[in-house]
Amino acid sequence: MGGDRAPAEVVAGACQAARELGIPVLLVGDAVYLSTVAPQAGVEILVASEVIHMDEDPGRAVRVKRDSSLVRCAEAVRGGRACAMVSAGNTGATMASALLRMGRLPGVSRPAIATVIPVPGSTPTVLIDSGANVDCTAPMLVQFAQMGWALATERFAIRDPRVGILSIGEEASKGNALVKEAHALLEAGAAGPDVRFIGNVEGRDVMSDRVDVVVTDGFTGNVVLKTLEGGVKAVVGGVLSALTGDTAVKEAAQAVLPALTGLANELDPDTYGGAVLLGVDGVCVISHGSSGARAILNAVRVAHHAVADKLVGRIEAVIASGRP
Amino acid sequence: MGGDRAPAEVVAGACQAARELGIPVLLVGDAVYLSTVAPQAGVEILVASEVIHMDEDPGRAVRVKRDSSLVRCAEAVRGGRACAMVSAGNTGATMASALLRMGRLPGVSRPAIATVIPVPGSTPTVLIDSGANVDCTAPMLVQFAQMGWALATERFAIRDPRVGILSIGEEASKGNALVKEAHALLEAGAAGPDVRFIGNVEGRDVMSDRVDVVVTDGFTGNVVLKTLEGGVKAVVGGVLSALTGDTAVKEAAQAVLPALTGLANELDPDTYGGAVLLGVDGVCVISHGSSGARAILNAVRVAHHAVADKLVGRIEAVIASGRP
Repeated sequence: MGGDRAPAEVVAGACQAARELGIPVLLVGDAVYLSTVAPQAGVEILVASEVIHMDEDPGRAVRVKRDSSLVRCAEAVRGGRACAMVSAGNTGATMASALLRMGRLPGVSRPAIATVIPVPGSTPTVLIDSGANVDCTAPMLVQFAQMGWALATERFAIRDPRVGILSIGEEASKGNALVKEAHALLEAGAAGPDVRFIGNVEGRDVMSDRVDVVVTDGFTGNVVLKTLEGGVKAVVGGVLSALTGDTAVKEAAQAVLPALTGLANELDPDTYGGAVLLGVDGVCVISHGSSGARAILNAVRVAHHAVADKLVGRIEAVIASGRP
Repeated sequence: MGGDRAPAEVVAGACQAARELGIPVLLVGDAVYLSTVAPQAGVEILVASEVIHMDEDPGRAVRVKRDSSLVRCAEAVRGGRACAMVSAGNTGATMASALLRMGRLPGVSRPAIATVIPVPGSTPTVLIDSGANVDCTAPMLVQFAQMGWALATERFAIRDPRVGILSIGEEASKGNALVKEAHALLEAGAAGPDVRFIGNVEGRDVMSDRVDVVVTDGFTGNVVLKTLEGGVKAVVGGVLSALTGDTAVKEAAQAVLPALTGLANELDPDTYGGAVLLGVDGVCVISHGSSGARAILNAVRVAHHAVADKLVGRIEAVIASGRP
């Protein structure tokens, strides 16, 4: 029921996942709306009478709306009826539902959001935390490094991914107080023997092949994510208007536009199907509020792989391997 | 003497400024090298025997190397021999030289770096602080808002520029502790009657026409700046490889590339000629370390306008109008 284009696009994407990917889905939401969905193999329905809207206070909404689609969805995962939850709704309420109903993994101080940043011509970069925790401590960043490492290993089959901490210079002496302290902890092996820490990385490395996992606090991470979103949009918009503004180049532009489609797809956030909330005891995929059917299809695929690859177990193991 | 391509490119750009823009320049640096520069109208020389290198500790270098080009340059401004300084060298040492030799403006707590972000199809956005102060307090952000406002007014002749604080959501309740406190101060008019505060803005607004001055701490600002640099580079690289990779589109691509040149120029940091250190008692322009002659030419132009438009006096006035 959540998202700017819900329920129609969300339901369409979920049904497509069942049909095309063979991943069974459970649609959680309004009885009347869901009764209009044509019955099909692999699609079940769980009725929830309430909806948490985009502008509601997450903590309060989750406490009060016990029969909301988000709360019921998280409960379905906890109870074993579903293996994972996917939502394009209120991000804070999605996190709160997952946290309160599934619970934290043992030893995890704070769950964090890992977002996948496309890198043209290379494997994507995992950015963690991209918005769950605005004020962080150094030990929290160490756990983000561990969880991001586990995701990069699982989702992109990157062997021995490079984990860096986002700062404003490569030297260990560069950064704010939080970064310097986290750097020292990671350098000393606080993230455990498996996590390869490569030191500080900079903003320009996020969309490059120099690092696989970029660790930062949720404030900076969210700013980075949205800055890239805006920057890519501005440049792509500039390219399109340069190619279509002048009648002299319009014809030639028609010939090159198909060549740019691959790039546009690569840069489209929908291709990666959403961020993942790591550190909770279950799989929770958070899709962009503007998700259409294709984004939801990909989010279901991401959730499916996380379950099949036992991502939660991997996170539990890497957290246990760290030194507190 | 500073910058990856100094002294040749820096000197070339400065001489070009004297020749093409009619702005007299004073070259500060090594006697032997500068003796090879062909004498020309509007170009004078001030010899300095030392150089502060890119990797030196800024504070220490400025204290110890009293006959360095950076220190002598700042002294030339303080003593009235020059109206402004321009450097592509060690950023920290440039700031330290300016701060120690020119001094702070009355009432300014911390000078900050204002960087100009190009926005395709619109006036640029001023980002302040983009790297001078990694750990900030809320009253510091209020002064950054005042100084950025003065720059947007002076440099881009924007009447009543919109000043926003960088956060992770538009509502006043969104952000980390620093942002919430600064938001409350700005909302209460701490920046004085002239500064129009429009509230929180997000990363995606930086490269858009929704805001003119984006206020943030120097850590986040530097990350944003470099993230955009990397993101724009990745997208532009992706476009170019899409247009040149396939022989079938190569010919058509040749026809459209000129149309993209205008955009590439607009996005090129060299076009804006560097950042400005605001809050010191003099004009100090900080160019990118990789500056070529064109970037230096534009930096000299920026310095010239700042002097002609009395930017320093404007900043002093807006700081005085604030409520501490």
